Amino acid sequence: MVLYNVMEEVIHDVLIKYKDQLHLTCKCERCLDDIMAISLNSLRPRYIVNRNNGPYVRAEYEADCQGATNILLTITKAATQVSKDPRCHSIN
Amino acid sequence: MVLYNVMEEVIHDVLIKYKDQLHLTCKCERCLDDIMAISLNSLRPRYIVNRNNGPYVRAEYEADCQGATNILLTITKAATQVSKDPRCHSIN
Repeated sequence: MVLYNVMEEVIHDVLIKYKDQLHLTCKCERCLDDIMAISLNSLRPRYIVNRNNGPYVRAEYEADCQGATNILLTITKAATQVSKDPRCHSIN
Repeated sequence: MVLYNVMEEVIHDVLIKYKDQLHLTCKCERCLDDIMAISLNSLRPRYIVNRNNGPYVRAEYEADCQGATNILLTITKAATQVSKDPRCHSIN
């Protein structure tokens, strides 16, 4: 049995979907991971024990407009923060 | 680079340390994972991108008495909840 935070998958998918509209100064793996970490730390985790339940938890989010909007807003803020001060070394 | 929630490690270690004092009706893997999931969902996540930073985040928690107490309280509540209604099949 593996503990699993469904929000990792939800946020990853939203980030990849909107990546080209977030005006990122850098799209390297490190910067995307930093945006994921900041976003995950700003949102309530949804850990499950049984991966089979993942789709139900995901559906809850996708069906909940307010939840989905809140996630996109959180990712946009994180993207702005990382773009202002990227910690990867590819820019300097 | 792997995203990692340091709280998974912190909560796991506290749960294992106090496992025998939590009056668990069942200590199977499923019940311990359920206690972990409930506890993780009740506490703020601490995702990091670079595992090398894990010890610093952990130290923050161990040094912060209020933080450590809050974690033990959260785990105790989760343990009581799971003990009342274990989802594993070894008891029935």
